[in-house]
Amino acid sequence: MEKDRLNSQIEFIKEIDKLKYIQRKTKLFNSNRNENDAEHSWHLAMMAIVLAEHSNENIDILKVLKMLLIHDLVEIDAGDTFLYDTTKNHVNTDNELVAAKRIFGILPKDQTEEYIQLWQEFEEGKTKEAKFAKTMDRFEPILQNESNEGGTWTEFAVPYNRIIEKVKGIKLGSSIIWNYTQSLLDNLRKNKIIND
Amino acid sequence: MEKDRLNSQIEFIKEIDKLKYIQRKTKLFNSNRNENDAEHSWHLAMMAIVLAEHSNENIDILKVLKMLLIHDLVEIDAGDTFLYDTTKNHVNTDNELVAAKRIFGILPKDQTEEYIQLWQEFEEGKTKEAKFAKTMDRFEPILQNESNEGGTWTEFAVPYNRIIEKVKGIKLGSSIIWNYTQSLLDNLRKNKIIND
Repeated sequence: MEKDRLNSQIEFIKEIDKLKYIQRKTKLFNSNRNENDAEHSWHLAMMAIVLAEHSNENIDILKVLKMLLIHDLVEIDAGDTFLYDTTKNHVNTDNELVAAKRIFGILPKDQTEEYIQLWQEFEEGKTKEAKFAKTMDRFEPILQNESNEGGTWTEFAVPYNRIIEKVKGIKLGSSIIWNYTQSLLDNLRKNKIIND
Repeated sequence: MEKDRLNSQIEFIKEIDKLKYIQRKTKLFNSNRNENDAEHSWHLAMMAIVLAEHSNENIDILKVLKMLLIHDLVEIDAGDTFLYDTTKNHVNTDNELVAAKRIFGILPKDQTEEYIQLWQEFEEGKTKEAKFAKTMDRFEPILQNESNEGGTWTEFAVPYNRIIEKVKGIKLGSSIIWNYTQSLLDNLRKNKIIND
């Protein structure tokens, strides 16, 4: 029984290696190289432990870390959906649910259930941990785009109001990080890196 | 004061992006592409949450995750040292300590101290959390090499006994994972993927 569990867990560990091939639209800091989902997930986890003190509410940081580590695994099957994509909506698509069931389904049943629940909690964004995790997920590409003279905002001509609309959820996780974000965006707008 | 803390933390978050450029000798699963340290750190963190139940001792998994997320950051300055390198020893070099002080030193003082201590605890490998974290760090490349017909063992002609010597610390973190590892290595030896 123990051996069966371990074998399933190792199969899962091998399967999720594929996250390293999923390219995001966003580039690394000061770079032209696209970030992949594994690098992104690591970076968000690091941000969460370093920035946890700025959460609006007292959070279970272990839960936040688990969420961030697994949050993009569904993209192994469903692919990355760009935040500013105008044709597809990023919210918990049918494809993503099928992907979650297949990928987490490799694990022993109790872990399958735990991770699907955790991923859904993140996607729904209603609990304090999900809010803070989503704050990290929105904040990283802002810092990356800032370092890349507008990055994907420039590349895809995303106007100021649309950016604000897409990232304003940051304030649900952290007012302090939201204040920082607003100053950063206003400054880029003033300097014509972001257009109206 | 709060703003100063946030600014230092964001500077650190930008700096550690460089981990994504540090190439390991080991390749991704079933692949010729080298793994980088950020991908590696993410994968070890995932392994830790999935495999925690196999730890010999009851561990603080949050502490293990923090260790694994930060364990290779010193390599931004000090570079990756290959486990089977015959000219350099991997244990906590002077260069790595200088690197730790510079990189973690970007953070507010309390966080600098916390992360340097955590990194040193990992390197020393004496606590139950450090033992389990090191088990993850040894186990991932074994699975990768298995998937790549011997991988770095074949590439650098590492004999069976040397592999055992280098990875036997796995049993300090988990007897169950060590038993699995021994079967795996014995099987590869029987099939002449690993030589004596």
